[in-house]
Amino acid sequence: MMRIKAVTRSLHSKITIDMKKNTGKPEPLFLNDANMCISTDLYQLTMVAGYFERGMDHKSTFELFVRNLPERRSYLIAAGLEQAIHYLKNLRFTAEYLKYLKDLPVFKNVSRELFDYLREFYFSGDVYAVPEGTVIFANEPIIRVTASMIEAQIIETYLLSMINYQTLIASKASRVVHAADGRGVIDFGTRRAHGPHAGLLAARACFIGGCVGTSNVLAAYELGIPPIGTVAHSWVMAYDDEYESFKDFHTVFPDNTVLLIDTYDTIKGAQLATKMGKKLKGVRLDSGNITLLSKKVRKILDNAGLEQVKITASGDLNEHKISQMLAKGACIDSFGVGTEMVTSKDTPALGGVYKLVEQEREGRLVPKMKFSKDKVTCPSKKQVYRFLDKKGIFKKDTIGLVDEEFDAEELLQPVMKKGKLVYKIPTVQQIQKTAERNISQLPDKFKDLDCKIAYPVTLSKRLRQVRDNTRNNRNA
Amino acid sequence: MMRIKAVTRSLHSKITIDMKKNTGKPEPLFLNDANMCISTDLYQLTMVAGYFERGMDHKSTFELFVRNLPERRSYLIAAGLEQAIHYLKNLRFTAEYLKYLKDLPVFKNVSRELFDYLREFYFSGDVYAVPEGTVIFANEPIIRVTASMIEAQIIETYLLSMINYQTLIASKASRVVHAADGRGVIDFGTRRAHGPHAGLLAARACFIGGCVGTSNVLAAYELGIPPIGTVAHSWVMAYDDEYESFKDFHTVFPDNTVLLIDTYDTIKGAQLATKMGKKLKGVRLDSGNITLLSKKVRKILDNAGLEQVKITASGDLNEHKISQMLAKGACIDSFGVGTEMVTSKDTPALGGVYKLVEQEREGRLVPKMKFSKDKVTCPSKKQVYRFLDKKGIFKKDTIGLVDEEFDAEELLQPVMKKGKLVYKIPTVQQIQKTAERNISQLPDKFKDLDCKIAYPVTLSKRLRQVRDNTRNNRNA
Repeated sequence: MMRIKAVTRSLHSKITIDMKKNTGKPEPLFLNDANMCISTDLYQLTMVAGYFERGMDHKSTFELFVRNLPERRSYLIAAGLEQAIHYLKNLRFTAEYLKYLKDLPVFKNVSRELFDYLREFYFSGDVYAVPEGTVIFANEPIIRVTASMIEAQIIETYLLSMINYQTLIASKASRVVHAADGRGVIDFGTRRAHGPHAGLLAARACFIGGCVGTSNVLAAYELGIPPIGTVAHSWVMAYDDEYESFKDFHTVFPDNTVLLIDTYDTIKGAQLATKMGKKLKGVRLDSGNITLLSKKVRKILDNAGLEQVKITASGDLNEHKISQMLAKGACIDSFGVGTEMVTSKDTPALGGVYKLVEQEREGRLVPKMKFSKDKVTCPSKKQVYRFLDKKGIFKKDTIGLVDEEFDAEELLQPVMKKGKLVYKIPTVQQIQKTAERNISQLPDKFKDLDCKIAYPVTLSKRLRQVRDNTRNNRNA
Repeated sequence: MMRIKAVTRSLHSKITIDMKKNTGKPEPLFLNDANMCISTDLYQLTMVAGYFERGMDHKSTFELFVRNLPERRSYLIAAGLEQAIHYLKNLRFTAEYLKYLKDLPVFKNVSRELFDYLREFYFSGDVYAVPEGTVIFANEPIIRVTASMIEAQIIETYLLSMINYQTLIASKASRVVHAADGRGVIDFGTRRAHGPHAGLLAARACFIGGCVGTSNVLAAYELGIPPIGTVAHSWVMAYDDEYESFKDFHTVFPDNTVLLIDTYDTIKGAQLATKMGKKLKGVRLDSGNITLLSKKVRKILDNAGLEQVKITASGDLNEHKISQMLAKGACIDSFGVGTEMVTSKDTPALGGVYKLVEQEREGRLVPKMKFSKDKVTCPSKKQVYRFLDKKGIFKKDTIGLVDEEFDAEELLQPVMKKGKLVYKIPTVQQIQKTAERNISQLPDKFKDLDCKIAYPVTLSKRLRQVRDNTRNNRNA
């Protein structure tokens, strides 16, 4: 075999531009941010200054929830908790950040003691959360934080950003996986995600939603999930002859040859692919009328005695296209899905909010709610009670107070107590299983891609009383 | 003033969970990733292995461009180059990552020399790029990379992810800023961005697109742009009495009091706000019929002699809503825009691609193009020539070969030569000015929010000849 000599690079190795040493030490994980203490909205910090100066740092409870399901979504899959936990554990105001904050004009009248306080700051609150992979619905708290007002406020922006995005994508991926009806779905989306980090988070969320792997190597490395992929058009185009490009690839990857056959002409490409013989693993279609082409390619493969060769499809796919392709009898064994899945293109934002629901005042718990038009919230610490039928199928959810007793599953679990982790963080493989089990328990009608009915979620009688009393007290 | 004693935290400071020392050293920048060498699609690395094994590492040129403008976009603003440069400069395969790759089943038949090669690897190619802030159109190369096939291939995924997202958001922000017609637009989007890092990139891209600042403190810190924001509903809700909450905030921030007045009833909120007197800086409306409310609130403020108090609007705004509000005479001085801007919600992905256009074979430059249905590319190294009228207004663009001579601006500038930076990276403030100047040079008809006409972009005669010859050679 011809090989490029490593020696041709010896000149280069003398140059030491920003060169990272090959120390052999584990790399820091990009998924779990080291310390993003000021990755927050400025108003969180001005409010913190206000609470500090006015002695308003009461013990408070905030809940993170989604007011309405996004368009075309009949359920959500909770995701992002692991990263939120790492953020909370690592949250420290370092000297450099404190200096920056101190010098901001907005803080010029604020007592310097605030910054002494922040220097010692770490998160010491209680956190309850719905485990990742759990099916959830509108208004159900996903995370509940009880902490000093200051601690609870600082963390809002990061928690929302992390939970909103991963939940959005796990939910979208779940729909795509459902449409694929047992065929493997692979995340191909990093290049169209909202930056390389979003690509990483997307790979994680897509895996939770049921994908079998990702093309993103960094994500595969950090999560321990399968990296998947073989060859792009540039490989074929690097050769003058398509057949040569196929043959060469097969030589290098005899056991992993999945050929991309649409660079010039898909049918001709399929015919050339058959010449690889019995060890060919698969072919990929990325353009044209894929349903029609997949049938023709299947025939070409079968006629060559290559029944075992798999067909993968890709190219701007989504759950609706996949469902239609399969309904029309497309001969496809797995789908590579990118842009539409990692941006949740049909509904690219989840409107999760994080709202104050209770405060402790002189030993008394005071329910808190917001009255703004169309943005009314429900007061007090809540729990989600999920009722199952005898077969374990989801019947209905009741959002109630935390001390109510129902013959139902309680979705919110203790995660941190006084800032200490009291929760065994599951692996992403375990989370995927949780999601799979949840989806199997969700009645089929809520899994329809065009589901128009809402899963029944009610408020408990006691919660409604608290809400009505809080409202009446306000209006009195 | 009442203050929370720092001493109440003394207990905490004894606990040392993941505690980052306050060293006073500069924090690493989250915007410029340290080393994301394996933040790439697996197929890039399998192809790299293939090129290595088959000695196919020819000098090659790839171009990054957008095939079609997204729906509802009549122009784009290039963004993301600075992060792409940092990525290229820091790209190293560390021992830990190499070990991971070596052990992947897909690489089991691949020569171990590949990993020796990768250990010495760094990016040593030439890069040309359109400066950030430049207005660009479909099919115009944004970045052109000439390097060994291996080097050029590894970097595809990261470059696409970074350039696609920031260009998408700078372009969206430019529309929002245009709709605001001279009023300030502030990025409020991190909580709905695709993760905290996307929020950071969005803040940068929004600033390039013309925003006056961001609520994201980390972004403000890293970019040196204004952090903006004052107070949320939770501040008001933390008090039993709205007026008390206003007064307390004004006490702490006498020169920076912007009050959120819609927590309970906007009109009553406005009346209470007037009691702060002459030093009140502004009020914010976040719900309800903001156009109508803004007029009523303006009257209340003016009647109280507070003509100088500004009104800020927020709450699921976008360019169309802003344009309509202003057309109806809304009394708004600045806009906080979040979700819709940082997710580019109406068109949340930019379909940038990165395609092989030329390869050097035995000293000869061979044009390369892709023939797949609807995905045909244009071969050879290209330059974008921009023709201006006498007043400096953009007349038309011609995409031509790099050695053509026109009386026109050449958009692609040298950025790296043999892996060395030959480009002075501008500040984000300078980039914002570039964008502002470009937008002022773009004829008004292309800035209409509902623009249906396409800016004229042609291919030069010589480029068309190369394309036709390459196609004919293929078909011959």
